[in-house]
Amino acid sequence: MFVREVDESLMLALVEPGFAARYLEIVDAEREYLGRWLAWPHNAHNREFFMSFITNALQGYSAGQSLTCGILYQGELVGNVSLNKIDRQLSKTDIGYWLSEQCQGQGLVTRAVSELLHIAFDELKLEKVEIAAAVENLASRKVAQRLGFTLEGVIRRAENIDGRVVDHAVYGLLAQEWHSSSV
Amino acid sequence: MFVREVDESLMLALVEPGFAARYLEIVDAEREYLGRWLAWPHNAHNREFFMSFITNALQGYSAGQSLTCGILYQGELVGNVSLNKIDRQLSKTDIGYWLSEQCQGQGLVTRAVSELLHIAFDELKLEKVEIAAAVENLASRKVAQRLGFTLEGVIRRAENIDGRVVDHAVYGLLAQEWHSSSV
Amino acid sequence: MFVREVDESLMLALVEPGFAARYLEIVDAEREYLGRWLAWPHNAHNREFFMSFITNALQGYSAGQSLTCGILYQGELVGNVSLNKIDRQLSKTDIGYWLSEQCQGQGLVTRAVSELLHIAFDELKLEKVEIAAAVENLASRKVAQRLGFTLEGVIRRAENIDGRVVDHAVYGLLAQEWHSSSV
Amino acid sequence: MFVREVDESLMLALVEPGFAARYLEIVDAEREYLGRWLAWPHNAHNREFFMSFITNALQGYSAGQSLTCGILYQGELVGNVSLNKIDRQLSKTDIGYWLSEQCQGQGLVTRAVSELLHIAFDELKLEKVEIAAAVENLASRKVAQRLGFTLEGVIRRAENIDGRVVDHAVYGLLAQEWHSSSV
Amino acid sequence: MFVREVDESLMLALVEPGFAARYLEIVDAEREYLGRWLAWPHNAHNREFFMSFITNALQGYSAGQSLTCGILYQGELVGNVSLNKIDRQLSKTDIGYWLSEQCQGQGLVTRAVSELLHIAFDELKLEKVEIAAAVENLASRKVAQRLGFTLEGVIRRAENIDGRVVDHAVYGLLAQEWHSSSV
Amino acid sequence: MFVREVDESLMLALVEPGFAARYLEIVDAEREYLGRWLAWPHNAHNREFFMSFITNALQGYSAGQSLTCGILYQGELVGNVSLNKIDRQLSKTDIGYWLSEQCQGQGLVTRAVSELLHIAFDELKLEKVEIAAAVENLASRKVAQRLGFTLEGVIRRAENIDGRVVDHAVYGLLAQEWHSSSV
Repeated sequence: MFVREVDESLMLALVEPGFAARYLEIVDAEREYLGRWLAWPHNAHNREFFMSFITNALQGYSAGQSLTCGILYQGELVGNVSLNKIDRQLSKTDIGYWLSEQCQGQGLVTRAVSELLHIAFDELKLEKVEIAAAVENLASRKVAQRLGFTLEGVIRRAENIDGRVVDHAVYGLLAQEWHSSSV
Repeated sequence: MFVREVDESLMLALVEPGFAARYLEIVDAEREYLGRWLAWPHNAHNREFFMSFITNALQGYSAGQSLTCGILYQGELVGNVSLNKIDRQLSKTDIGYWLSEQCQGQGLVTRAVSELLHIAFDELKLEKVEIAAAVENLASRKVAQRLGFTLEGVIRRAENIDGRVVDHAVYGLLAQEWHSSSV
Repeated sequence: MFVREVDESLMLALVEPGFAARYLEIVDAEREYLGRWLAWPHNAHNREFFMSFITNALQGYSAGQSLTCGILYQGELVGNVSLNKIDRQLSKTDIGYWLSEQCQGQGLVTRAVSELLHIAFDELKLEKVEIAAAVENLASRKVAQRLGFTLEGVIRRAENIDGRVVDHAVYGLLAQEWHSSSV
Repeated sequence: MFVREVDESLMLALVEPGFAARYLEIVDAEREYLGRWLAWPHNAHNREFFMSFITNALQGYSAGQSLTCGILYQGELVGNVSLNKIDRQLSKTDIGYWLSEQCQGQGLVTRAVSELLHIAFDELKLEKVEIAAAVENLASRKVAQRLGFTLEGVIRRAENIDGRVVDHAVYGLLAQEWHSSSV
Repeated sequence: MFVREVDESLMLALVEPGFAARYLEIVDAEREYLGRWLAWPHNAHNREFFMSFITNALQGYSAGQSLTCGILYQGELVGNVSLNKIDRQLSKTDIGYWLSEQCQGQGLVTRAVSELLHIAFDELKLEKVEIAAAVENLASRKVAQRLGFTLEGVIRRAENIDGRVVDHAVYGLLAQEWHSSSV
Repeated sequence: MFVREVDESLMLALVEPGFAARYLEIVDAEREYLGRWLAWPHNAHNREFFMSFITNALQGYSAGQSLTCGILYQGELVGNVSLNKIDRQLSKTDIGYWLSEQCQGQGLVTRAVSELLHIAFDELKLEKVEIAAAVENLASRKVAQRLGFTLEGVIRRAENIDGRVVDHAVYGLLAQEWHSSSV
């Protein structure tokens, strides 16, 4: 496993084939919880699903087009966080995440996303990061709000979650906003 | 040429290879005007560019993924209007357009887009149409406003026009809004 | 639907996905009749067959290699007519057609083919059009004869119709012949 | 070299990369003569051309779609003869050939084609072989006539030889005709 | 069939689709015998297997990357011998072979391999030929020993034969060794 | 950067696009030194070379077929070490490495390879690891010897280093040998 330390209890690990079994375990146990605001858990029923996800993620990483990490809390894999699409032409990217229900309430996602913001702005030198969340997914929206993102719009019919079409609250954070707030 | 009549003076024609020469003529004459709010005129310097555009457009049409039409005013090709991406999963599409400066001011784009709305909602049975325009492109935004679209957000860093990154005003129109306003 | 008017009661419409259902309906009802001299009705048992046919036809059109049209008689789709292969190196093409048995006997195919000859010779500037028909398919041969084609040969073992190998009567019409006869 | 004996002085050898140099030598020396009725010598100016020809020929052979042989006269490579397209659906093939001007007048092509007829009818069990020659290429037409082929038609605008479009005399020989004439 | 004579009773024939039936016949009759030291007979249960093998072999031949021949003893197909990979960068190749149990004990493989050595060193001008055999496959090792090869090493875990992993005795013969021993 | 700690001063980092510049710097400075026993430095003259290397390496990693790491000594990138080909069928892999001349003599390669042995045997559960080195590359051979590998053979003409063909000393280490020596 190849890792990047966030703080004492939290690490980001580049996804690797060995993660598939654990991801399946979490999703099998929490499919209803995770599937409330994510489309893919409804189709993720075996190890092959995650192997394919991981292979695609590493290909995206190898092409400099995305970065997908497992969230390791106290050494255990408990979620995933990613720069989904690194767009060099617009100098921006968008962040996605999910976390096991077991680990909610400790700010893990916010800390993990914060590390990705550091990568996006300080290492990749991007100008903007976006987060889109279903309008009613308040927990996810809170992550963006806590990190200083601005709500840029509410786009209707933006995502199909297992047949239910939801609207998206779209949040944005510019590099200059990040740098001034980080000071 | 295969056409669809809009009204006495206006027709939409499915793009075809024969349009390339006329499109190049317009763009050569009005590159600065068209390039103010469009990215591609900056790269459109020969017939091959438009042949490739037309081939892609027809492939998109053959796959049911897009619909790209020339705007014919009094029998002359003067612009282009399109359903850029027909998304069956979200049951929505987005509309793009451009028109020769010569023909501005007569509501041609509004009438052409109106016909595409009819295709999108009545024939393709879609649930939503979007139009995105650069925030400062007031002429383009007016088309959406006149046709009853709602402004859903202003997304920052949304398009790169020849090196200038602009924000997008994103407008949306739901099928139910269209049908009630059309009555 | 994008169309081209032939005369008061006849139009050619570029094939489009929406035609698949009606084509299937005709072939289901007349498979024996159409299958007498055509190979494909024997394999055309569902909408997918025609969707694939239409997609290929539109790809051929997008590449400038073929042109496939529905025949619309009094607004109803009743058959198909096409430039099957536009050969720029030899500056020629070949025409194929089929028509619902319901509409036989009114010269519809001859009028539709005549329009394609106009496209081939006047718009595409080709030098020759060919029509090949099974030797015993007298109805199809009459179309070529009526339009002034010359019988160039009888090629043995030229087509496999559901296991039956038939000979082809090959007809040709040169641009100069067409233009002098059209006067 | 892998060969097949025709008679004491004549062998057919499956084409192989080693033939490219000799083919180029013949074509460089006789380009005008060979180019009178063949299209490709006008484009065959280096070893790569023949390497590509040979690779394609062996791929066709590996797929059971064609058979391309060098003609070896008294051990020397002097020409080429081939089943160009083995069509299992119609159970037929067509034969092509060329021979160095140096070796004309000894019936070499007729003997080599005769061996291919034996392969086509007796080994591959095909039902028909075709030979097409430019109408004015009397030498090539004589090969078909001598071997008992029937003239099935004269197809206009059938081949483009370096910008000159020629008509084709199309000859056919059925298996039953071959077998009765061979007795 | 295209052949190459080795001596009065032995010929090498370039593999061709017609060989598939006979190869299957041999392997069906001798699967246990051949499968003792070869991996593929365990998976070779139908004509398609050999058709695919032959197609690949001819594609390798067409690309100048391999040479695969049937062994014809007194006109009958009894085995296979090949230059498996012609490596121009290292100027070497490796030889593989199998022979029907019926024909063992007459030195047929040694004579066939000897012809391939002649092709490899004299025609292809390679600098080295390798033969690898399972350590306990004494018959195969004897072929290399008889032809003057040097044992270069015993590589552990070199081949998986139907689940059994065996070590390889690797033999090499340099061009200079071959030429001096051939004198 | 995603890392794996070996000891206090040494880390392995999964290769990433950001390494290209540093790799080029090392190779530009030490091309003669590194090119003595490696083929690729002779062709590695720009950032694109290493970007392509890194992309391929990450694709291999995503497919579970290889593992390529940078060697970080006291936080600085000074070399590369890899499982080149993970062969599940034979349950083995082979290891390659290079190190900046600046860092020679401290056992860094041996420590880095030792970590890869741990990954290969303990995590990937492979049965064998191989190391091949040019016969005269004594430094590289010493790494294998120090780590308990057995010399299995000397394969002649095994690698082409910029036109010079060298023989390979092939070393192997079985899992059982590793485990007994590690105790």
